[in-house]
Amino acid sequence: MRAEGRFITLEGGEGAGKSTQARRLAARLACSGLPVLVTREPGGTPGAERIRGLLLGHGPWDPVAEAMLHFAARREHLVRTIRPFLAAGGWVISDRFADSTLAYQGAQGLRRDVWAGLADLALQGFAPDLTLMLDLPVDEGMRRAAARSGADRYERMGTAFHEKVREGFLGIAAGEPRRCAVIDAARDADSVAAEIARVARDRLGAPT
Amino acid sequence: MRAEGRFITLEGGEGAGKSTQARRLAARLACSGLPVLVTREPGGTPGAERIRGLLLGHGPWDPVAEAMLHFAARREHLVRTIRPFLAAGGWVISDRFADSTLAYQGAQGLRRDVWAGLADLALQGFAPDLTLMLDLPVDEGMRRAAARSGADRYERMGTAFHEKVREGFLGIAAGEPRRCAVIDAARDADSVAAEIARVARDRLGAPT
Repeated sequence: MRAEGRFITLEGGEGAGKSTQARRLAARLACSGLPVLVTREPGGTPGAERIRGLLLGHGPWDPVAEAMLHFAARREHLVRTIRPFLAAGGWVISDRFADSTLAYQGAQGLRRDVWAGLADLALQGFAPDLTLMLDLPVDEGMRRAAARSGADRYERMGTAFHEKVREGFLGIAAGEPRRCAVIDAARDADSVAAEIARVARDRLGAPT
Repeated sequence: MRAEGRFITLEGGEGAGKSTQARRLAARLACSGLPVLVTREPGGTPGAERIRGLLLGHGPWDPVAEAMLHFAARREHLVRTIRPFLAAGGWVISDRFADSTLAYQGAQGLRRDVWAGLADLALQGFAPDLTLMLDLPVDEGMRRAAARSGADRYERMGTAFHEKVREGFLGIAAGEPRRCAVIDAARDADSVAAEIARVARDRLGAPT
């Protein structure tokens, strides 16, 4: 945990409600007077948003090249957006971060040591203070995602892939219990938001 | 040196004549009946060309992010273009490769160990059979580059930067004399082409 602001990430599969819950947590923190920034990956800077366009709109990419594009975007996001905001005492909430690259690209064959090598080079030890793993059954997540418009490449992939992604996230959470909290995201949004507020209060002393 | 084809790279600063000499060497090899592919970096695949557009058209990028974009493009180039052509017995000539990232991004502060880490992850030991370092004084290179239209970001940078780039290339060549040959590129194009043909013959047994 760093002295200045706090960095919270929301992770999880399609339809888990990450962006909704990011906004709700931000609203709670902002009501307490904290400076809060909600951001997303890939993205969060003009350059990283351009890389996002390459990642989501083109491909398929070689798995190592794809991971490098994700970490290039993440490096820009860290250096230009996240770190300056934290240094100024703000709280940053990101819809996805490095765990998503491991869960999604890992489910497509990216080796964990390649991911770890890129994470070391791009982040140099930087990590979230708290990661909320929004977990729900794949069929429920797919159903929710299908109800939205504009399904992207990942949303069009099959159930077996999304099961692997879910296992990836749960494996990360099991390996880093101090950083990660698994949140049951199959419940209604109000219940999920209340649990997230409680976890942020208990773990980071957030005024929620 | 691999059993199938051969991979030759041309490196050097602005105005050194890399693309001209790549085409001339390719023509000589093709006249001998060899299958030859001339390619360039960043680029060489549709995806890598898109990354090239980000690199040359936007920025400034964080140095680590920029190096990751270069290596993402290089990985695509290697996997989709270079390796398949070599495996089919072809000779590949690339206008720039990994040395350019070290020389150019190194001159802007990229740490050598970060470059080496990315090279390991993207190339996994793959290296050119021969690298032709086209060397000429910076002022002469700048004069030639200025005579062309469409100067890019690097061409607009100052003399001190290009002196560092030149030192970077010469340092790489000094450290890897078996792979690299320094070619005096200040001479006329015919003389340079003749020396390149001789080096390719002596080092790789090329039918030039």
